[in-house]
Amino acid sequence: MSVDGDRRRGPERSRRLPREVRERQILDAAVRVFSEHGYHYASMDEISDVAGVSKPMIYAYLGAKEDLFTECIRREAIGLMEAISKGVRSELTPDMQLWHGLDAFFGYVDDHRESWLVLHRQATSAGGPFSRQLLEMRARAITLIDALLTKTASSEGMDSQARKGTEAHAAALVGACESLADWWLDHPDIPARVLATRAMNLVWMGFGDLMEGNVWTPTHPES
Amino acid sequence: MSVDGDRRRGPERSRRLPREVRERQILDAAVRVFSEHGYHYASMDEISDVAGVSKPMIYAYLGAKEDLFTECIRREAIGLMEAISKGVRSELTPDMQLWHGLDAFFGYVDDHRESWLVLHRQATSAGGPFSRQLLEMRARAITLIDALLTKTASSEGMDSQARKGTEAHAAALVGACESLADWWLDHPDIPARVLATRAMNLVWMGFGDLMEGNVWTPTHPES
Repeated sequence: MSVDGDRRRGPERSRRLPREVRERQILDAAVRVFSEHGYHYASMDEISDVAGVSKPMIYAYLGAKEDLFTECIRREAIGLMEAISKGVRSELTPDMQLWHGLDAFFGYVDDHRESWLVLHRQATSAGGPFSRQLLEMRARAITLIDALLTKTASSEGMDSQARKGTEAHAAALVGACESLADWWLDHPDIPARVLATRAMNLVWMGFGDLMEGNVWTPTHPES
Repeated sequence: MSVDGDRRRGPERSRRLPREVRERQILDAAVRVFSEHGYHYASMDEISDVAGVSKPMIYAYLGAKEDLFTECIRREAIGLMEAISKGVRSELTPDMQLWHGLDAFFGYVDDHRESWLVLHRQATSAGGPFSRQLLEMRARAITLIDALLTKTASSEGMDSQARKGTEAHAAALVGACESLADWWLDHPDIPARVLATRAMNLVWMGFGDLMEGNVWTPTHPES
């Protein structure tokens, strides 16, 4: 994919920027380059060019390509999980909490396609240590969703038998959303909200209700 | 993991075996060795040793390590999909069809842990062309599940609006099962049937019913 020369050169080089700003510039550039070429074909030259930060400075701040990719996965995974956490509104009913979580997930993926590509397809394709890192990140996502489900289940007075299953349900939910977002890459014209609604109907209503034509709709539809 | 010397040597070498039998021996051995060591650390010497087939013969029949790994993924993915297809009984009610499909999936993974490890974790960890192959296999699994869902939805007179969503639902279902089976690797003492029941409750009943304490149970429980 060819990108306009001026855009690629990225922000003006300056010696005055604080370290966090530079690191963010480098990581933003790295995510863009990794999402486009994958780990193996991405070059530090291009990352340096897009970031507007010299290669020696990238090495000094964030290390070699492997470290940079690791840090991209970590940062993007945290960004995604923070977006989901923020999306959940604990004052709402359980279904609306789940809906906001799903909506936050698909909305984030929609707004950060490059992040999702790096996090999902490129990290998987790179294999090796990155796939282990990915498994760890998925485990954290499952723990996060499990905590949300357990909290909701407890406040709803769900019995202990049902609560025992929340971790397995969280694993299923994370896998379902991941797979849907992957499928979405090949069906990009479906709006984020439509996908979130389908996911909600599946995980909240289940196939049983769907077969009978029962659908779930948000009680307070928002823009 | 150390294995008894005699078992490792595998079946007696013989010049009389037909090609299919030899190829099966080689692939069985390859799946075992790949599941244990992963793609990068598996050696052709060990595969030859476990299969009881010489290395030149392995190269002649199935090619180099990369070809062997590709063929393992292909064979194991087909085995899994066949098991699911056979598990589905089209004469039953939709919920029982889905239940038998899920039960077949988790039962197969339970009986073929090595296949699942190769297919899921080792193929992911190997990255590169194998992760593309895995994406293709997942796409096929989604198509298979989609066909089952569409067939069921049509015979139940589900409306066209709901039917439009079956491919997305199939993607979600495949992802949910994959993630659950991955989670299972770290929680191996849960029986296959318990996991299948949890999966069924999630995808058939949905969280909505589960919150209200409604659970799904098979109408004809079998051993």
